[in-house]
Amino acid sequence: MTALASFSSPQGTFVIRRAVEEDVPAILALLCDDPIGSKREFGLNDRTAAAFSAIDADPNQLLLVVVDEWDDVVATMQVTFIANLSRNGTLRAQLEAVRVSGERRDLGLGSTFLHWVIDECRRRGAGLIQLTTDKRRDGARRFYESKGFEATHEGMKLELK
Amino acid sequence: MTALASFSSPQGTFVIRRAVEEDVPAILALLCDDPIGSKREFGLNDRTAAAFSAIDADPNQLLLVVVDEWDDVVATMQVTFIANLSRNGTLRAQLEAVRVSGERRDLGLGSTFLHWVIDECRRRGAGLIQLTTDKRRDGARRFYESKGFEATHEGMKLELK
Repeated sequence: MTALASFSSPQGTFVIRRAVEEDVPAILALLCDDPIGSKREFGLNDRTAAAFSAIDADPNQLLLVVVDEWDDVVATMQVTFIANLSRNGTLRAQLEAVRVSGERRDLGLGSTFLHWVIDECRRRGAGLIQLTTDKRRDGARRFYESKGFEATHEGMKLELK
Repeated sequence: MTALASFSSPQGTFVIRRAVEEDVPAILALLCDDPIGSKREFGLNDRTAAAFSAIDADPNQLLLVVVDEWDDVVATMQVTFIANLSRNGTLRAQLEAVRVSGERRDLGLGSTFLHWVIDECRRRGAGLIQLTTDKRRDGARRFYESKGFEATHEGMKLELK
């Protein structure tokens, strides 16, 4: 469990690292822990275990966690690198499942984490970072705008039955 | 160049197949051929050739073309399958770079192509299809809504300098 980066704040010392299998229950707990997620997340089971294995085996996927001094997961994000012919062959980095523990929000942790991710995407040669955020998440859009993201697109979803 | 599907319309017979290297110039021409794309696409060069190789080598990527009876590319779409812990480990399919030749639009070709892609995503086990569409593309949002997509999310982008 190699640290990719670490940083200190008045709240303590935190490490950003690649998620390992043992982190999956804590990541799922973060995904559950909000009004939207609580209706559609179900914790560790065969489906989520298989999804973790697929993510972990894919060199274009980077599932990250931020852990505190006790190795407790306090934030998570999934980055997917997508080769693309568009925009003159620009590699895209896509952010999904971005969550910071409710207890740790508003402490600058999310900002520090996102800034590191933006730098990491640049280091890996991405020219564009993209994400979609549920229109019901008022604060999230403002947070991303404060980091330079622009809501130029409609994010559309189709659930398959 | 194996056909994945074929269909006939009053305009002729069309084949959906995986893109091959020889299709790249025609795909890039479609990406250029609109008011937004014309400002940011630059045709075949080392960057776009490398992007094609990366896409083609990735089992989670499916770059598609629709060709007419003369094997001319009349539509294209890039599908990326993204394993995900969210929504109880639901595999996502993401659509990017969807284009239909201007001469062939409004002939139902885009609809037939998208319906086939939706079915293919289902066959591959995806539970969610997602895309973002530039808010300036008025007709595109309505087209996707007519297929059941909902614009529930903001699509946010950050260009890296």
